[in-house]
Amino acid sequence: MSFNSIGNLLKLTTFGESHGKAIGGIIDGFPAGLKIDTDAIQAELNRRKPGQSAIVTQRKEPDTVEFLSGIFERKTTGTSIGFIIKNQNQKSKDYNHNTNVYRPSHADYTYDKKYGLRDHRGGGRSSARETANWVVAGALAKQLISQISINAYTSSVGEIEMDINYSNLDFSKTENNIVRCPDEQVAQKMIDKIKAIRKEGDTIGGTITCVVQNVPVGLGEPIFHKLHAELGKAMLSLNAVKGFEFGSGFAGSRMKGSEHNDIFNEDGSTKTNLSGGIQGGISNGMDIYFRVAFKPVATIMQKQTTIDSEGKKTEMQGKGRHDPCVVPRAVPIVEALTAWVLADFYLLNKVRKI
Amino acid sequence: MSFNSIGNLLKLTTFGESHGKAIGGIIDGFPAGLKIDTDAIQAELNRRKPGQSAIVTQRKEPDTVEFLSGIFERKTTGTSIGFIIKNQNQKSKDYNHNTNVYRPSHADYTYDKKYGLRDHRGGGRSSARETANWVVAGALAKQLISQISINAYTSSVGEIEMDINYSNLDFSKTENNIVRCPDEQVAQKMIDKIKAIRKEGDTIGGTITCVVQNVPVGLGEPIFHKLHAELGKAMLSLNAVKGFEFGSGFAGSRMKGSEHNDIFNEDGSTKTNLSGGIQGGISNGMDIYFRVAFKPVATIMQKQTTIDSEGKKTEMQGKGRHDPCVVPRAVPIVEALTAWVLADFYLLNKVRKI
Amino acid sequence: MSFNSIGNLLKLTTFGESHGKAIGGIIDGFPAGLKIDTDAIQAELNRRKPGQSAIVTQRKEPDTVEFLSGIFERKTTGTSIGFIIKNQNQKSKDYNHNTNVYRPSHADYTYDKKYGLRDHRGGGRSSARETANWVVAGALAKQLISQISINAYTSSVGEIEMDINYSNLDFSKTENNIVRCPDEQVAQKMIDKIKAIRKEGDTIGGTITCVVQNVPVGLGEPIFHKLHAELGKAMLSLNAVKGFEFGSGFAGSRMKGSEHNDIFNEDGSTKTNLSGGIQGGISNGMDIYFRVAFKPVATIMQKQTTIDSEGKKTEMQGKGRHDPCVVPRAVPIVEALTAWVLADFYLLNKVRKI
Amino acid sequence: MSFNSIGNLLKLTTFGESHGKAIGGIIDGFPAGLKIDTDAIQAELNRRKPGQSAIVTQRKEPDTVEFLSGIFERKTTGTSIGFIIKNQNQKSKDYNHNTNVYRPSHADYTYDKKYGLRDHRGGGRSSARETANWVVAGALAKQLISQISINAYTSSVGEIEMDINYSNLDFSKTENNIVRCPDEQVAQKMIDKIKAIRKEGDTIGGTITCVVQNVPVGLGEPIFHKLHAELGKAMLSLNAVKGFEFGSGFAGSRMKGSEHNDIFNEDGSTKTNLSGGIQGGISNGMDIYFRVAFKPVATIMQKQTTIDSEGKKTEMQGKGRHDPCVVPRAVPIVEALTAWVLADFYLLNKVRKI
Repeated sequence: MSFNSIGNLLKLTTFGESHGKAIGGIIDGFPAGLKIDTDAIQAELNRRKPGQSAIVTQRKEPDTVEFLSGIFERKTTGTSIGFIIKNQNQKSKDYNHNTNVYRPSHADYTYDKKYGLRDHRGGGRSSARETANWVVAGALAKQLISQISINAYTSSVGEIEMDINYSNLDFSKTENNIVRCPDEQVAQKMIDKIKAIRKEGDTIGGTITCVVQNVPVGLGEPIFHKLHAELGKAMLSLNAVKGFEFGSGFAGSRMKGSEHNDIFNEDGSTKTNLSGGIQGGISNGMDIYFRVAFKPVATIMQKQTTIDSEGKKTEMQGKGRHDPCVVPRAVPIVEALTAWVLADFYLLNKVRKI
Repeated sequence: MSFNSIGNLLKLTTFGESHGKAIGGIIDGFPAGLKIDTDAIQAELNRRKPGQSAIVTQRKEPDTVEFLSGIFERKTTGTSIGFIIKNQNQKSKDYNHNTNVYRPSHADYTYDKKYGLRDHRGGGRSSARETANWVVAGALAKQLISQISINAYTSSVGEIEMDINYSNLDFSKTENNIVRCPDEQVAQKMIDKIKAIRKEGDTIGGTITCVVQNVPVGLGEPIFHKLHAELGKAMLSLNAVKGFEFGSGFAGSRMKGSEHNDIFNEDGSTKTNLSGGIQGGISNGMDIYFRVAFKPVATIMQKQTTIDSEGKKTEMQGKGRHDPCVVPRAVPIVEALTAWVLADFYLLNKVRKI
Repeated sequence: MSFNSIGNLLKLTTFGESHGKAIGGIIDGFPAGLKIDTDAIQAELNRRKPGQSAIVTQRKEPDTVEFLSGIFERKTTGTSIGFIIKNQNQKSKDYNHNTNVYRPSHADYTYDKKYGLRDHRGGGRSSARETANWVVAGALAKQLISQISINAYTSSVGEIEMDINYSNLDFSKTENNIVRCPDEQVAQKMIDKIKAIRKEGDTIGGTITCVVQNVPVGLGEPIFHKLHAELGKAMLSLNAVKGFEFGSGFAGSRMKGSEHNDIFNEDGSTKTNLSGGIQGGISNGMDIYFRVAFKPVATIMQKQTTIDSEGKKTEMQGKGRHDPCVVPRAVPIVEALTAWVLADFYLLNKVRKI
Repeated sequence: MSFNSIGNLLKLTTFGESHGKAIGGIIDGFPAGLKIDTDAIQAELNRRKPGQSAIVTQRKEPDTVEFLSGIFERKTTGTSIGFIIKNQNQKSKDYNHNTNVYRPSHADYTYDKKYGLRDHRGGGRSSARETANWVVAGALAKQLISQISINAYTSSVGEIEMDINYSNLDFSKTENNIVRCPDEQVAQKMIDKIKAIRKEGDTIGGTITCVVQNVPVGLGEPIFHKLHAELGKAMLSLNAVKGFEFGSGFAGSRMKGSEHNDIFNEDGSTKTNLSGGIQGGISNGMDIYFRVAFKPVATIMQKQTTIDSEGKKTEMQGKGRHDPCVVPRAVPIVEALTAWVLADFYLLNKVRKI
């Protein structure tokens, strides 16, 4: 049991509060001998970091990762990889108003009741700042399974949905716009929507679609570590996520077996792929694709009534620096967690037959 | 790492193939001193068992659980609880046609590629027969957390959806009909639909909604064992599941923060509950509710083209005894897994503050 | 966390009380595709089983293992392997005198205090009957790592110690006598000693030495899963064990570095082997050898004063059927656990470098 | 599976190389609400740190621990506790001679063969520098179970053994001398011995005895997490340890049952304590005591022949700064690991009965 760990053979354990000295983690089980491209890791962190564009929080963090162990002369040594990311732009004072107040739809109340106390500054441990750790781990995982390609993108913001099937998209365009939607026209609508919402002091939800290609057959461990179940758990670990579906998803529940079955080609591939690349919890070599639903950010710049820790009614208005929509910055995080889960199963699969 | 285990402090490990001698499991970490009602456990198994009604598979299995250890003079002793359920009505011959054929959208192909061989009889380990083990464990968990009430029900079959909010339902009616939908009129439509589908030799998907009430505040372990993430993983472990959403779910991704935030009452409860009873991965005392999407059963009684293990094209038609819709029998399984996850967190929460 | 599990990637979980219906276990993580020799497994069980000779307990148990899953057409399938061993010759009535009495140096008192109740029949879960499960798992592990040879033997009974270094022993002689000492002359003295002790209604301790040869370099996982630490933990899990030493052991604590260092040959082997085949927690290819100390069995056929569960003084005298010395029957158990630990590390080592 | 973790519910995961930027760890599962005395933690680190006296290595490290998370306003918050200890006095140049040379009885050879490469500077991950992390964790654990007293001391150096039973010792005297032996006369002999050995450029082994008092009844989790088995594993994780025994230990293997059984008093305590405070893997409330054997340090200041990574013979002589005897500095580490194991079981025991 480790509350702050993800993975089985490849395990990430993390620590850190939003306004503490640093966040960080330990990666255990990473194989020895892989040459690491640290620039690529930093590039992933830069995709996630705050302050990168006009539609995200303006907290300025360099988010520079420092590796403290486990890499020697640029190669992994097989020993545990310790890393930290220092917090530099905390502005904890912005949260003084928040000391004894429970922000609606935040974790203030539940942390306080569960633990009897909490670090209120910036949400403490419940802050999405933690996800920077995940991006570091995911970037390492991507290098371990470099033959597998993982592409996530913003597929909806509020009611603005992109209806194009992923197979008609050019993923190289995802990074061309600040909302990370590979269709430029839809992207512009999404950006306009987020800007309008921010002006209202409000926030908006959205969805991310992730597509995984070139996956070897055989990843995933039934019964209780099915590939899609671990992917789902990873995604549901991400702040603000309310739903996960893969392959045909919820739409599949309205279909008939004769429509839904994926008929085989002679090479073992299938003519359709409503299964979403996974059968019985094991990858079948087809594309894996899934969709993740994010609720709107709870911190809004409008007055709300709430209660304090004594149960007294009070009013509050969001301060601090917050995202009007988490989805654009969550795209690299979805990829990172996906890479982590796949890399873990990639290693596990090496020992499942003699 | 245990591929066949679920839970952290309270752990279930299982074994068994559809047509083997028996299936079974070991429950580890169950506290000592609980008086066990074995009739209640058998009653849950009876809700799941095949052959119980006109709209489910006609395989006849008594599904009698035998406890082999860990219970003494009707009380749990704190030691591991071993149990088995003997297979009695296998009819493996029905699967002879299946020896070298990969059934579409089944796990035959992936198991064979992953492990290099497989027990083809009745789907082997990938069969939903395994879920009888989960029902045993869940029934024990329900007795451990008897103050919490867990009610699942069929909320849709194909396009027939029940639009009534759960708070207007009378859960005591769920067992009144064979499709397990607490609204009698909708239930009848669902039953008719399933019968029609079966006549076509086809199958149909559906959804189950689960509602958990009287949950204490504080269950769930951030960062990587959030309550909803573990519930989601458990549900995604269930055969045929393609999606999971809780609280506002996918609909929440289309909302604004000002609409979505749950404003507090002075007693810590909230006026709305779009959060679905969980904030920051920890229960907040409000009702937990979630929805699970099931694809249609892959075995249909129609001719399909497929391939054999040499990659040669062949034709096949489902034989054996199969459910035209898994949803009615999955209702007790959803409850069982929910109980298991909650009981695990209930124990964990006892040691999270001094 | 699983209280009743041993191993990491290869995991055994067990259940069962001495006088329950059956004991058994689940083996998780065993690779697919290994052809299993079930006769060899039963042969190991026969080495451990009660009633096999004049110097062990006369409880008669066939100790027949039934595999319920995970093996298909004699090969492992990669799914979990469930097995049971039925209890047949319990004679629980022999333990009626024991219901409320705490036997000295048994686990009656601690189980009762810890769990609030216990299955008193034959020691319940604390009985060494459990070790039959370990022998099954170990026998499977031996087949997985068949290139490694594992030989344990009785190296002392009471004060009768065998001073011969293991390299001068012929392990094929171990099974030639009922005390399992490969030196016939010492063996006879040990047998005479045990018979004399039994006549007194007393019991006696002893030690087992285990030698592991043909071990590949690289097994063991620093920092907290060092090869010798896991071997030590496994041995200390065995009933009645009070000590573990490997390589130079306690004698090494009296030596100087200049005496103790193992100087390398050019092929990487070492001239001496005080390290016991392990450096830094990792096998170095030399023989691994260790010694395990067993206290005398607590059940003696002499009158002892003790207390009952109310704390009242009482007298008791051992009934039931017990070993005057556990060491001969523990020899196959030591081998089984050793095989289990090594097989687990053998699998783990496959994924430790790219 | 986490290679670098120790503990079950309370889990420490560590990282760090001897000559890297820093070592550190993450403590997971520590309950919220404990007021932490950071001075007491630093005091334990000071007991372990190099350069503290004339008989230990002269490497100068301040060994200051920095907590990065999990403690807020001096109290634990229930979230993961991240900490680092910076390396400051590495002198890696001292190890240049060591780049391609395998030092006898060190882990150079095994790390290189297992991982295909290694950080050779100061032993890299295999260095006992890692144990500073354990002392931090142990010092926190001591504060969690402050009612339990844990006292370790040097019980032998080479052939100089202290024969006095622990019950006749005054543990408050242990810190009065630099060898950490509570008997002043024996201590002086030990110090003289170590000084003489160092002058010869040699090293010497020894033993540590550890006594744990005021332990509640019920700690330890059968079958595979017995209290003494976890203590043994923890001790065997410590660099240079070759043996572990508790209670009667190896001497117990020479005894008869009638001598060895601990007869109960009416209050559940026992007249003798050859069991060493543990029966069936569970603490019985009596003192726990055990003994740990340390081999002599492998680095000696004498010429030794050895091989390089190409298998060529070469000569080497220890440089760098090393302990002539590890035992005095290992005393606080033994206590730290003991505290860790006990605190873990203390938490686990809270959920073992209803």
